[in-house]
Amino acid sequence: MVLVGLMSKISQLHPRAESLRVREKLVKALKSNIVVPEGLTAHGRGEAFDYILGEKTTVQARRAIEAAVAMLLSAQRPVISVNGNAAALAPKFIVRLAGAVGAKIEVSLFHASRKREIAIASWLRKNGAKEILGVDKKFSARIDEIQSNRMKVDRRGIFVADVVLVQVEDGDRTEALKSRGKRVIAIDLNPMSRTAQAADVSIVDNIVRTLPLMAEHAEHRPRGRQKLNKIIRNFDNNINLKETYTHMREKLWKLSK
Amino acid sequence: MVLVGLMSKISQLHPRAESLRVREKLVKALKSNIVVPEGLTAHGRGEAFDYILGEKTTVQARRAIEAAVAMLLSAQRPVISVNGNAAALAPKFIVRLAGAVGAKIEVSLFHASRKREIAIASWLRKNGAKEILGVDKKFSARIDEIQSNRMKVDRRGIFVADVVLVQVEDGDRTEALKSRGKRVIAIDLNPMSRTAQAADVSIVDNIVRTLPLMAEHAEHRPRGRQKLNKIIRNFDNNINLKETYTHMREKLWKLSK
Repeated sequence: MVLVGLMSKISQLHPRAESLRVREKLVKALKSNIVVPEGLTAHGRGEAFDYILGEKTTVQARRAIEAAVAMLLSAQRPVISVNGNAAALAPKFIVRLAGAVGAKIEVSLFHASRKREIAIASWLRKNGAKEILGVDKKFSARIDEIQSNRMKVDRRGIFVADVVLVQVEDGDRTEALKSRGKRVIAIDLNPMSRTAQAADVSIVDNIVRTLPLMAEHAEHRPRGRQKLNKIIRNFDNNINLKETYTHMREKLWKLSK
Repeated sequence: MVLVGLMSKISQLHPRAESLRVREKLVKALKSNIVVPEGLTAHGRGEAFDYILGEKTTVQARRAIEAAVAMLLSAQRPVISVNGNAAALAPKFIVRLAGAVGAKIEVSLFHASRKREIAIASWLRKNGAKEILGVDKKFSARIDEIQSNRMKVDRRGIFVADVVLVQVEDGDRTEALKSRGKRVIAIDLNPMSRTAQAADVSIVDNIVRTLPLMAEHAEHRPRGRQKLNKIIRNFDNNINLKETYTHMREKLWKLSK
């Protein structure tokens, strides 16, 4: 018998065990100030799209991951922008990916508070990060085009970055970063979001699967500049997104039969 | 400029203002113990499906609403089962619908605690409800087939009900209620959920739109028994769900162009 409602431990037998475990992590992170309630809603939206995608990393997402890693490896000043959900769900892989591609890690929150910034930074340090940007006010700079708290950036990080990796939806910001000439890699389960539409590389996948894949990919790939350039040149984000829609429609068709 | 991240008041100009206001209500309800964090995730999943549906009540949903109201009006002992999200988002319409169809209101929670039950009951009373079942332990009964805390029901309510209206996903329970010979009406934005699949009438729509429509419909419909029976007889839930899938696929097609 699966008494999810009564017990906190999730039975392995539950058909949605993996998904429930991820939710439990977020609820725990809510209690420790890493995640805000709005983050849980955002996660739920992602879950629905993931369900339609088949809860697997698609061929299209793998292609986007390859292009994203190549772009990060060939960047001059790559930055991984971290929000509460990503910190809660994949802290170790954020640290590993940053290490493998030589990127800085910057905490950048939509629903920001000093308490959260510090909680997330210390959580990432606990998971192996050495340097966390976005927390020390001494290095604060502004990107005026961003219409939320995320306009505050670190002048050693996003402010001067040439490639920024963002997670989950934040359409305004992606457009603003683009307008500053930065290239944006987005991980977003909604292929129709403004973020996915505006990014240079849109990885339509669950961060729980994508960040480990990216870290591994970055650690093992040959890094010849020519090879990386070829991967980036051959990747067409629009075509890849269109193929993702087709995949979703086919899945929806199968699910509904 | 839309400073959602900095200010608590949502600008009318924001493209997602209505959706943000609903989320704000849930965050507020989280603070007053009516909603649990898991409810926010569930809401997010619903939002994604609603987005694909076009955030409008579909023709199929209207048909299901008509059948559902007819079923409630012709029931002997109808019960509206209320969870935290429904209580937070549409308390007045739950009370109006219950009044119009002569149904009892029963609090039934997946993530239950005494504190929440009392908070929800008092919130519904504040919104005009006279009697709230599911809170007084004296009337507690069990439906063993339900594999969650929701096995605890009120013996004046769900235990003896012939028609039960449930909201949001709870696949196990819908199947268990059906096995006891009850008819189940489900409001669920995911047409592929086990709840939507198992229910007699599945309303694939946002409770924020559905409950007002149901209340209005119940208050104004002619109630001749023959007419009600005809509406129920003419409604085919499987066909209606299949048409809903088709609608979703078409919307997804348009969204992705």
